[in-house]
Amino acid sequence: MPALTNQPVDGARLWETLMRFAQIGGTEKGGVKRITLTDEDRRGRDLFRVLCEQAGCTVRVDSMGNMFARRAGRDPARLPVLMGSHLDSQPTGGKFDGALGVIAGLEVLRTLADLDIVTEAPIELVNWTDEEGCRFGRAMMGSAVWSGIQPEDKVKALTDGDGVSVAEGLAAIGYVGAQPCAAFPADAMFELHIEQGPILEAEGKPIGIVTGAQAQIWFEAEVTGQDSHAGTTPAIARHDALLATARIIEVVDAIMREDGDTNIADPGRGTVGRLAVFPNSPNVIPGRTKFNVEFRNPSDARIAAIATDFPQRAAACAAANGCTLTLTPVFRVPAQPFDADCVALVEQAAARLGYPARKMVSGAGHDAVYVATKIPTAMIFTPCKDGLSHNEAESVEQFEAEAGCQVLFEAVLARANRVL
Amino acid sequence: MPALTNQPVDGARLWETLMRFAQIGGTEKGGVKRITLTDEDRRGRDLFRVLCEQAGCTVRVDSMGNMFARRAGRDPARLPVLMGSHLDSQPTGGKFDGALGVIAGLEVLRTLADLDIVTEAPIELVNWTDEEGCRFGRAMMGSAVWSGIQPEDKVKALTDGDGVSVAEGLAAIGYVGAQPCAAFPADAMFELHIEQGPILEAEGKPIGIVTGAQAQIWFEAEVTGQDSHAGTTPAIARHDALLATARIIEVVDAIMREDGDTNIADPGRGTVGRLAVFPNSPNVIPGRTKFNVEFRNPSDARIAAIATDFPQRAAACAAANGCTLTLTPVFRVPAQPFDADCVALVEQAAARLGYPARKMVSGAGHDAVYVATKIPTAMIFTPCKDGLSHNEAESVEQFEAEAGCQVLFEAVLARANRVL
Repeated sequence: MPALTNQPVDGARLWETLMRFAQIGGTEKGGVKRITLTDEDRRGRDLFRVLCEQAGCTVRVDSMGNMFARRAGRDPARLPVLMGSHLDSQPTGGKFDGALGVIAGLEVLRTLADLDIVTEAPIELVNWTDEEGCRFGRAMMGSAVWSGIQPEDKVKALTDGDGVSVAEGLAAIGYVGAQPCAAFPADAMFELHIEQGPILEAEGKPIGIVTGAQAQIWFEAEVTGQDSHAGTTPAIARHDALLATARIIEVVDAIMREDGDTNIADPGRGTVGRLAVFPNSPNVIPGRTKFNVEFRNPSDARIAAIATDFPQRAAACAAANGCTLTLTPVFRVPAQPFDADCVALVEQAAARLGYPARKMVSGAGHDAVYVATKIPTAMIFTPCKDGLSHNEAESVEQFEAEAGCQVLFEAVLARANRVL
Repeated sequence: MPALTNQPVDGARLWETLMRFAQIGGTEKGGVKRITLTDEDRRGRDLFRVLCEQAGCTVRVDSMGNMFARRAGRDPARLPVLMGSHLDSQPTGGKFDGALGVIAGLEVLRTLADLDIVTEAPIELVNWTDEEGCRFGRAMMGSAVWSGIQPEDKVKALTDGDGVSVAEGLAAIGYVGAQPCAAFPADAMFELHIEQGPILEAEGKPIGIVTGAQAQIWFEAEVTGQDSHAGTTPAIARHDALLATARIIEVVDAIMREDGDTNIADPGRGTVGRLAVFPNSPNVIPGRTKFNVEFRNPSDARIAAIATDFPQRAAACAAANGCTLTLTPVFRVPAQPFDADCVALVEQAAARLGYPARKMVSGAGHDAVYVATKIPTAMIFTPCKDGLSHNEAESVEQFEAEAGCQVLFEAVLARANRVL
């Protein structure tokens, strides 16, 4: 669909700024490599600060490097309305994952300045530190500490592959702020993000009204059999850990499909993404495997059912192949619903702007999911080509970015001006 | 079963010598690390040479480092009868894989000397270079060049992980012999080896009469799907390369079981031993896998059928999961039958000695399998505990080693004294 006319935000300026940030860590294949707490991250942060100040904001940095660009409201007693996302990327990331939410927020601030609008409540645009988790192994790091989900001292002691700690990384780029990192009183937070999935594109809808995030359960699994000679060991004498693992992979898939496998909107997710085989020699029957299993579902009850069903079925697969299974739950989060009032503001904005929209649950983790544990929060999704993200080929059309930004503008403005 | 009495070979001396060699590269866990062309290999070779000379033999070395210890016969015109195996081991190998065949051959030579037996034909005990293939990636290296299966110049140019070539390795340990490495006229070859499988132990038989080696076909496989976000991608939109691979692993297993899966003697073998997953991240649906598939069967016709059946069924697994499969045949050998007369000598020896025995096909590769392409050849198997080999826990009982050595003695003596 074409961009609507007579709407406040400037789509061309938004796009130009997106492309300007995409040059910071830009890759030959058109992607972005702006890993957290590197010099590219610093350059992105520096530009963010300058552009926010040019739009009339005051920028603060907290002790985790989270950046808050504040635009004053009319009523100094009112709590700020937050919006934002993250400027860090995956090693072979795209131009939009995270950056869209931050730069669209900047466009909201610029539009407010252009139109000389003074909102009742202050507005703060946030750049959360290290959403991707690809360097120090802890995703949504800045928002996790802000929300009290992760302790700051432990997070700051995490190290990357070269032994550099988060604390050292923050100091190295000069982004250890004076403000303690903790949830301060705020009225709401809105995050615009690419969907990172195929649903909006498949349905031709430019706006996703995100009602919350899925429940998740993650396991680490180890199957132990007996490695033996591929040429001399007959079927009846095998304890093939990889064969048992293949059957467990099928069980993970089958459990996902119990929630449907014919519709793009089916809610189940079940994935084995990482697998190691031992001894991993072409002519040795594998005696051991290690792998990761994760399930996601909007329903806490369904995840609870899977938490008992899957281990039983997986253990049966191992036993049927003369192997044993060790299954360790390593991560479990309940479904995180977003705030009904904030979600309603997003829905109303899309309707008023005439954008086809659908309610949906986020399959991915986002800063907003952590922030939602502390303050009223909602998210807006825009489509991305082929549902692709964490990939240099990640792609969004200008009119899609603009539509998301228009909805963000409307929702934030409505929240900041609401009658208390 | 206990060792039989009144038999020629000295079981205690055999065992003592096995344990003496096991100290060269002996590991804390009771295994052996005597990798080809290392200083441990050199020490094993030096001891082999000394003990053979003490038994009255003349030792020659060929240009591949293969060692031949010759005991003269009565008739200098007769071709020698060979026996032997290999003294090199896997990095975490056992005391018997290879060493048993060489040291039992030494015991045969010692016994002939003790009893002042002069055979009609000369007898030569061989220590083949690098049977294991774990350092330079080419198994049965010495016997392959001897048999003309591998060209010597190419094999000598192979390098290990540190860039050291076979030629350099041979020179470094001083085992580049004057004799060209090529099949010289010989009457026969007998190799005693541990079974490396569970059949003899399961049936309580101390002797395997090996009638030949299996046919084999090996593939390299690559499945390509689309990596995508585990949380946002619904079942219908997935192109999960690991799920497709799991189904192919099941097909490999099913094809093996078509030749039976209820009996220890079932002939089918089908194995996926090595698998790599990309990008191999816990929360990314794998977009690509690479793995190795091998099938073995005593029947060339069965392997031919698998060569057409398996690619079709595997491709269907990939297609059913929205993926594509590339399957490259990388290795194929026909079944290698052993010489009927030599096999009969092994069978007759076991019968005369009163050892329960069974005919069987070797599932593993051996020097004898290559040598059999040039001269009449047979093998004798002894049981090993739990069918385990390529493992520091590899274990053989003294009476089992002795029984194998008795049969080797009888078969070699019969061949060397046969009426031409």
